[in-house]
Amino acid sequence: MGDLLASLAGAVDASGILTGDDIGPRYTDTRGHGPAGAPACVMRPTSTAEVSAILKLCHDAGRTVVPQGGMTGLVGGGTPGDGDVVLSLERMNAIEEIDPIGRTMIADAGVVLETAHGVADDAGFVLPIDLGARGSATLGGLISTNAGGNRVIRYGMTRQSVLGLEAVLADGTILTSMNRMLKNNAGYDLKQLFIGSEGTLGLVTRCVLRLQPKPLTTSTAFVGIDDFQSVPAFLALLDTKLGGGLGAFEVMWSEYYDFVRDHCPSLKPPLPPNHKYYVVTDALGSNPEADKDRFEAILETAHTQGLIQDGVVAQSDKERDDLWAIREGAGEGFRTIAPMFTYDVSMPITVMDDFATQSMADIEVAFPGAKTLILGHLGDGNLHAVVSVGDGSEAAHRKVNDILYGIIRDAGGSVSAEHGIGTEKRDYLNWSRTDAEVEIMRMLKRTLDPKGILNPGKVI
Amino acid sequence: MGDLLASLAGAVDASGILTGDDIGPRYTDTRGHGPAGAPACVMRPTSTAEVSAILKLCHDAGRTVVPQGGMTGLVGGGTPGDGDVVLSLERMNAIEEIDPIGRTMIADAGVVLETAHGVADDAGFVLPIDLGARGSATLGGLISTNAGGNRVIRYGMTRQSVLGLEAVLADGTILTSMNRMLKNNAGYDLKQLFIGSEGTLGLVTRCVLRLQPKPLTTSTAFVGIDDFQSVPAFLALLDTKLGGGLGAFEVMWSEYYDFVRDHCPSLKPPLPPNHKYYVVTDALGSNPEADKDRFEAILETAHTQGLIQDGVVAQSDKERDDLWAIREGAGEGFRTIAPMFTYDVSMPITVMDDFATQSMADIEVAFPGAKTLILGHLGDGNLHAVVSVGDGSEAAHRKVNDILYGIIRDAGGSVSAEHGIGTEKRDYLNWSRTDAEVEIMRMLKRTLDPKGILNPGKVI
Repeated sequence: MGDLLASLAGAVDASGILTGDDIGPRYTDTRGHGPAGAPACVMRPTSTAEVSAILKLCHDAGRTVVPQGGMTGLVGGGTPGDGDVVLSLERMNAIEEIDPIGRTMIADAGVVLETAHGVADDAGFVLPIDLGARGSATLGGLISTNAGGNRVIRYGMTRQSVLGLEAVLADGTILTSMNRMLKNNAGYDLKQLFIGSEGTLGLVTRCVLRLQPKPLTTSTAFVGIDDFQSVPAFLALLDTKLGGGLGAFEVMWSEYYDFVRDHCPSLKPPLPPNHKYYVVTDALGSNPEADKDRFEAILETAHTQGLIQDGVVAQSDKERDDLWAIREGAGEGFRTIAPMFTYDVSMPITVMDDFATQSMADIEVAFPGAKTLILGHLGDGNLHAVVSVGDGSEAAHRKVNDILYGIIRDAGGSVSAEHGIGTEKRDYLNWSRTDAEVEIMRMLKRTLDPKGILNPGKVI
Repeated sequence: MGDLLASLAGAVDASGILTGDDIGPRYTDTRGHGPAGAPACVMRPTSTAEVSAILKLCHDAGRTVVPQGGMTGLVGGGTPGDGDVVLSLERMNAIEEIDPIGRTMIADAGVVLETAHGVADDAGFVLPIDLGARGSATLGGLISTNAGGNRVIRYGMTRQSVLGLEAVLADGTILTSMNRMLKNNAGYDLKQLFIGSEGTLGLVTRCVLRLQPKPLTTSTAFVGIDDFQSVPAFLALLDTKLGGGLGAFEVMWSEYYDFVRDHCPSLKPPLPPNHKYYVVTDALGSNPEADKDRFEAILETAHTQGLIQDGVVAQSDKERDDLWAIREGAGEGFRTIAPMFTYDVSMPITVMDDFATQSMADIEVAFPGAKTLILGHLGDGNLHAVVSVGDGSEAAHRKVNDILYGIIRDAGGSVSAEHGIGTEKRDYLNWSRTDAEVEIMRMLKRTLDPKGILNPGKVI
């Protein structure tokens, strides 16, 4: 190891390698998802060439490498083990170019999402990848996990915003595929290999991202609905009547709404608690004179058709923030029911309500008095569940996993809609993938990383 | 070969294999792109299991297999060679399911696009993949080539409409990855391997496609513009002011417009010929009361800002068809300048006008009196060129290729925006891909098709 460490130190500047006590908690604290080991060192390269040199040295030595971005992942995808070489992209944080005509941004993998948002905004555009961890999450991590978020219904997952990228393979080969065009059918679309594969097939070092025109208006409503079949019908009405302008459609089951009322004193629930489902939805528009009236007219239509029973429309940015806080700001309540287990699953919309009902019932049987809260991005087929059973043990966690993922498996859903597999869901990958799928994943892994040095133990 | 033919015959019903004179021109006429050989037989399976059995037999025998869909490709991707086994998906043409809640269609690869359009329409949706060959092109072919078309600016390439698929690998392994959700981050996104790889990595047999709500209005304008920088500025204005509603943005250089005026007597050019660029654009909307007025107001703004110099707005479906015919209906004119070479390239928008100017000039130097017509999907970074040099020889074709692809290479563009590589552009793949990219494509090919039996000689 001493030889390798010396070689690695020679590949970077003095700030480019950390060992021993210099390895701070940033590199080992992965939000409790799997215990981190003691990495041999942390490499902090400043260029793709340095990443290549580091990987080549590790490859030759057969040393495992764990790539890290902003360390905001939720499934332990960045957790190092004993003796791993951590490779943090944090110092590769330049935004190289904004092309306002082609509407692209070229940036390093270590750029923090919020920084990229600001640069896009200054140029008159929006970078539509967005999620709560925007202040720490990096572009490379978002690409490696194909991150989702609240704007997927309008702009798609991160995959759809990536036009090109540069990646370094396990043996140090640099793959530069910095396509800037929306269309490029010249051979295989290699970038897809590195989007969503959590650093197990190669390390993303740079990217070309697609920017979008800024919406000129945002209209927000919070509505109550009494029967589940009206929820997708309301979604369909909005989607049809808003053209391409539906910006978010988030559903909360009543148990979650009641929880917010009881446990989040700083929030202001806008509707009475007698509905079974609550939806917060955004319309993104381009006509400041007319959009809000039109949005309210569509809601009136939905009410007349019996699709929604009650609702409020935000009259100011402050009111919009308050409505969204019901969906996103329940942290103070969650702290009162810790420890809890969180889930990120997808399934056909038609089975969602059955999933929610059965999940709550089965968990109640296994853990009487448990709290199971269901909410999520219904329009994307994606629900989140928050489960508190009064026991944070690994055994309890596994028992809840088995219950929820079993229902998902039977419904043809996925154990990971947007968070990825990491270490946390690895044992459940084959609950939503066939044997043939898993075998071909392994075949790709063997082909691109024959020594298995990249992010070992993650995904497969 | 006799043994293999007998085994193949045993794998399908009596209509499932064609040999000798029964092999009609459908299977060997590939629009003149590369001379077709005499295939050993044509297999016409009716199920994924039969496709698997056929591939297993061919794999064991080391026999090459050429998959075929509707045979509308433009780069020779379906051309068989002597002794190849043609595998036509034409009899796998069932639409299995429409889910109006999840808004998905599950269909066989051999379904003709126009048929799928009709079924989607009957269910109240639009399947947004669309192109001129819709009456023959099949879903499997569209997926295998990641087809584009005029609606890419609104809905993306075919890739973005594919949620899941089933593919058969070279050795007969069936990979069922029929995901129905918009989000699924459970491991690698394997379907990407088979989208756009032209049947060289596996054969797509079934798919899950995403449907979209029907637009309620379409507004169409045809405008004249005098300077190139106003073209992307006009695009940006439309994109911003229309929210997500920009449905098409097609640009024609003046040489093309003049050509239509001179060679297409059945068309009705709507504007005088004094402009340098012409644009036909669609706005897709959802508000029948207001959309047309709003569209005209945006055009008025563009005129006031000096971005467009002249324009007409279609007042009826007939007028819309007439405007679009300028862009799409020039076949009568093209026939008068045959033989001609056609191109499908992409590049950053900022270099497009230089590409057009330099292409026309360089081709004129090489072939005095040649016609070079430029038009295309500017918003997608994709241009088409039609070149007639009075000589249809392979030598002339190669010379024009070298000129145009040389300019594209220097501009960082792609030799194929949407048509694919097939046989026709194979020699130019490395003009827009790096050595490392091509090497990794080869590595994937070796991994998934180690004997090289799938669509030999295509792409790489």
